[in-house]
Amino acid sequence: MSEYPTSLGVSDPTTIRLLNHDLASEVMGNVGFGELTFWLIARRRPTPQQTRVFEAVLAALADHGFTPTAIAARLTYLSAPDALQGALAAGLLGGGSRFLGVTEDTGRFLADALGEVDGVVPSDDAGWDELARRALVEAKQSGHHVPGLGHPVHKEIDPRTPRLIEIAHEESTYGPHLALFEAIGRVHPAVLGRRLSMNGAGVCGAALADLGLPVDLLRGVALIARAAGLVGQLAEEREHPAAMQMYMEIDRAAVEVPIEQS
Amino acid sequence: MSEYPTSLGVSDPTTIRLLNHDLASEVMGNVGFGELTFWLIARRRPTPQQTRVFEAVLAALADHGFTPTAIAARLTYLSAPDALQGALAAGLLGGGSRFLGVTEDTGRFLADALGEVDGVVPSDDAGWDELARRALVEAKQSGHHVPGLGHPVHKEIDPRTPRLIEIAHEESTYGPHLALFEAIGRVHPAVLGRRLSMNGAGVCGAALADLGLPVDLLRGVALIARAAGLVGQLAEEREHPAAMQMYMEIDRAAVEVPIEQS
Amino acid sequence: MSEYPTSLGVSDPTTIRLLNHDLASEVMGNVGFGELTFWLIARRRPTPQQTRVFEAVLAALADHGFTPTAIAARLTYLSAPDALQGALAAGLLGGGSRFLGVTEDTGRFLADALGEVDGVVPSDDAGWDELARRALVEAKQSGHHVPGLGHPVHKEIDPRTPRLIEIAHEESTYGPHLALFEAIGRVHPAVLGRRLSMNGAGVCGAALADLGLPVDLLRGVALIARAAGLVGQLAEEREHPAAMQMYMEIDRAAVEVPIEQS
Amino acid sequence: MSEYPTSLGVSDPTTIRLLNHDLASEVMGNVGFGELTFWLIARRRPTPQQTRVFEAVLAALADHGFTPTAIAARLTYLSAPDALQGALAAGLLGGGSRFLGVTEDTGRFLADALGEVDGVVPSDDAGWDELARRALVEAKQSGHHVPGLGHPVHKEIDPRTPRLIEIAHEESTYGPHLALFEAIGRVHPAVLGRRLSMNGAGVCGAALADLGLPVDLLRGVALIARAAGLVGQLAEEREHPAAMQMYMEIDRAAVEVPIEQS
Repeated sequence: MSEYPTSLGVSDPTTIRLLNHDLASEVMGNVGFGELTFWLIARRRPTPQQTRVFEAVLAALADHGFTPTAIAARLTYLSAPDALQGALAAGLLGGGSRFLGVTEDTGRFLADALGEVDGVVPSDDAGWDELARRALVEAKQSGHHVPGLGHPVHKEIDPRTPRLIEIAHEESTYGPHLALFEAIGRVHPAVLGRRLSMNGAGVCGAALADLGLPVDLLRGVALIARAAGLVGQLAEEREHPAAMQMYMEIDRAAVEVPIEQS
Repeated sequence: MSEYPTSLGVSDPTTIRLLNHDLASEVMGNVGFGELTFWLIARRRPTPQQTRVFEAVLAALADHGFTPTAIAARLTYLSAPDALQGALAAGLLGGGSRFLGVTEDTGRFLADALGEVDGVVPSDDAGWDELARRALVEAKQSGHHVPGLGHPVHKEIDPRTPRLIEIAHEESTYGPHLALFEAIGRVHPAVLGRRLSMNGAGVCGAALADLGLPVDLLRGVALIARAAGLVGQLAEEREHPAAMQMYMEIDRAAVEVPIEQS
Repeated sequence: MSEYPTSLGVSDPTTIRLLNHDLASEVMGNVGFGELTFWLIARRRPTPQQTRVFEAVLAALADHGFTPTAIAARLTYLSAPDALQGALAAGLLGGGSRFLGVTEDTGRFLADALGEVDGVVPSDDAGWDELARRALVEAKQSGHHVPGLGHPVHKEIDPRTPRLIEIAHEESTYGPHLALFEAIGRVHPAVLGRRLSMNGAGVCGAALADLGLPVDLLRGVALIARAAGLVGQLAEEREHPAAMQMYMEIDRAAVEVPIEQS
Repeated sequence: MSEYPTSLGVSDPTTIRLLNHDLASEVMGNVGFGELTFWLIARRRPTPQQTRVFEAVLAALADHGFTPTAIAARLTYLSAPDALQGALAAGLLGGGSRFLGVTEDTGRFLADALGEVDGVVPSDDAGWDELARRALVEAKQSGHHVPGLGHPVHKEIDPRTPRLIEIAHEESTYGPHLALFEAIGRVHPAVLGRRLSMNGAGVCGAALADLGLPVDLLRGVALIARAAGLVGQLAEEREHPAAMQMYMEIDRAAVEVPIEQS
């Protein structure tokens, strides 16, 4: 039988270890949940400064009201109230490319653009603007969407964006990804021909990439934040049911039409 | 069109509100992730003392290594690496009655037993022991399993149990559910005929119930903790793949047998 | 290394076997999908008569329009169009106790009532009526819900019910579960004090139990039928998107209210 | 309130309609499950010939033993036996790019190559070989993987492949996608430098595309087939549990290692 090496949870009759530490004496009571979540994903313990930025991101992404994912979770809870895990899972399954993917997509877009810089990153706004312009032109020419720009509701300013940048400055975690994202905010109207707001989910991706988290796992951060928000939705549904009404209104509006056949 | 009242996320073009607070200025940067998670579930903001106990519970439940849920998540990530949300959801779907349900089951068992007390709860160990004895005898007579007792690995002591009780005392959140759970630990050998360890997931249920969280939602707490742990498992799988080996070893051990027909 | 015995799929470099048969030469092209599904669940090959009844059940359960499960699947597809499996899974997760569980619950209720008969089952309507009366009285006295009675839309007659009974007669699979279900239909007004329609999902449970399928797995039959229906919903969503409109209408109807604190 | 047009399930107090037909009198008892599944996905009723090919594909894809998806489903059923829908969903969530995606990927690859043909498709093997060569060279030059070639177990011949081609010929549904796939089978060694088997999941994609199903939904076909297979796995797990042993063997092989820090 082969072995399965791991640095996560292992246990024997008297001890439990997690991340190479004693769970009971070293982790429980000493490590906050945001800090632990970062540690699990990054496989390194964050500083208090990194933790505060990380937790601000989690707060920014936790819940946005009646999103498709929240509605799906509530409807599943209505149908199968005995399996809370199913309602939560149904909600998380909407965490894909279109709505919840912006955080990861933006982090990757910025990381890719920075990866093309050989040598040192810019030291002033003009340098960042030039780098942003190159990335935007390239995206435009290859027909790619620029993630992190535009928001269906917050068309002028997404209030999360300046706040997260402020916190990153306060905690000295502001780095090249946020700098490039801010530059994109400045120069994109000239390249794309219209001014878009800087999306709050996008700035989260930039801030997380500045914390050194792997871009492949940024969607995982968004999903954990959303897990908390979705349980909040289910807690509210339990107190103040809304899903039955949602279902009834949609069902009553159904109208049969013939299948089109060309 | 009817309205859908909510106290969770709502937004307009310039502001986002969450739990009746301004998300950017009041929540982001000010509310830790454990605190926010409690707030979302309980629909009330916890004190720092409650938050520390709550975060100790989340740490206790986050990850236990190669559990069925962790293996299911890793195998799903192997099969569909482009949809991290699916791997996370697959892992959470194991959060049911058998492994992850102990927290909720224990909280409910204790709350039910306390609910039968008319008047005041006991003021000394003897009183708690008597109450515990009654609950155990009743469970035994009706053939019900007593949740929170026994652990396949930690047969003597689950190290999370004394530690969480200690933290609850430090933060003055120790209440009737933990008191009853400790009494069950003392008197169950006399009633059930054998000594079992006090399960760490069970003590978490008691501690959460003492924090005033609704027992219907304790499974939700366990699931959020597990979400963080599962993304940790997927982060490790990404760095050090194990799922292919797990699959290959099981697949190679398959042996065809005829379907029995009675 | 231990072995894992199985009668399902096994393969070696040149052959694939399924259910102890050669997949390519014996199953493909020779076994219909309804027949194969029955065989997989029951672990025995159905007769053509059993297959026709089974397929009528699958048709009866496949799709009911904009149910909570269909809406959840469409909303998940909207959010994560790149992961069709996630949208399907989200829809199936609503297959729990409340909406999709009726089939299994009815089958179990009937099987339990029949299990209490010692000796032979009734041979005429009067005997069945008496057995039905006993089962209903017992359920009423113990405060249990009687599954399979009542439907929110089909208050008089669920058109699936007489049709499935007719097909079961045609194929000679009509047995004690359907007989008892019909008797419940006759006598329940006298016991329960009001006339309810005999639910189509309930009659499916009775018909499946008469086919000898284990009642623990009847929910599985409903889920497979629903899987086909949900992919149909996603096919329609792809051609004629509706989920964005559903989401927008709900989201726009959100109204912030203060969290009640008692 | 807007309307939601649909051609799927609609109902009123006395009737249920599905696909513009009366469910009870026209569908139940008259439409097999494979036929209905095709109809739901394609939004057109298949001929008996198309149905037989379609059902052969479903049989080919239903179950392959202890795949990652089957193991994930069994482990989830072990953890949460009260929620069969969760175990099924967990298994389906592995239906992503890597294992179950071959059917859709192959169908899309072939459809794309055929889409580049202006005018008529080839009329002889030499013509198909030339088209196959062009598609392979293009894929090779752009660094793309050619889907549908190679199989970890069936290195010489996947027995499903010749059988499905045979059935397609018998039913006269053999068309350009299968013709191109066969040509790829003939010419790929010369282009790619090694001989690979023609994968059974790949040939399914070709056969389904020849039936006129949209390539975007071929993954949906594979998932429905797999849903039946997974319920079969859970039926077997219920009779002959294996998941606990799988879990224990993996868990016991866990070895703690320090997190590497570069």
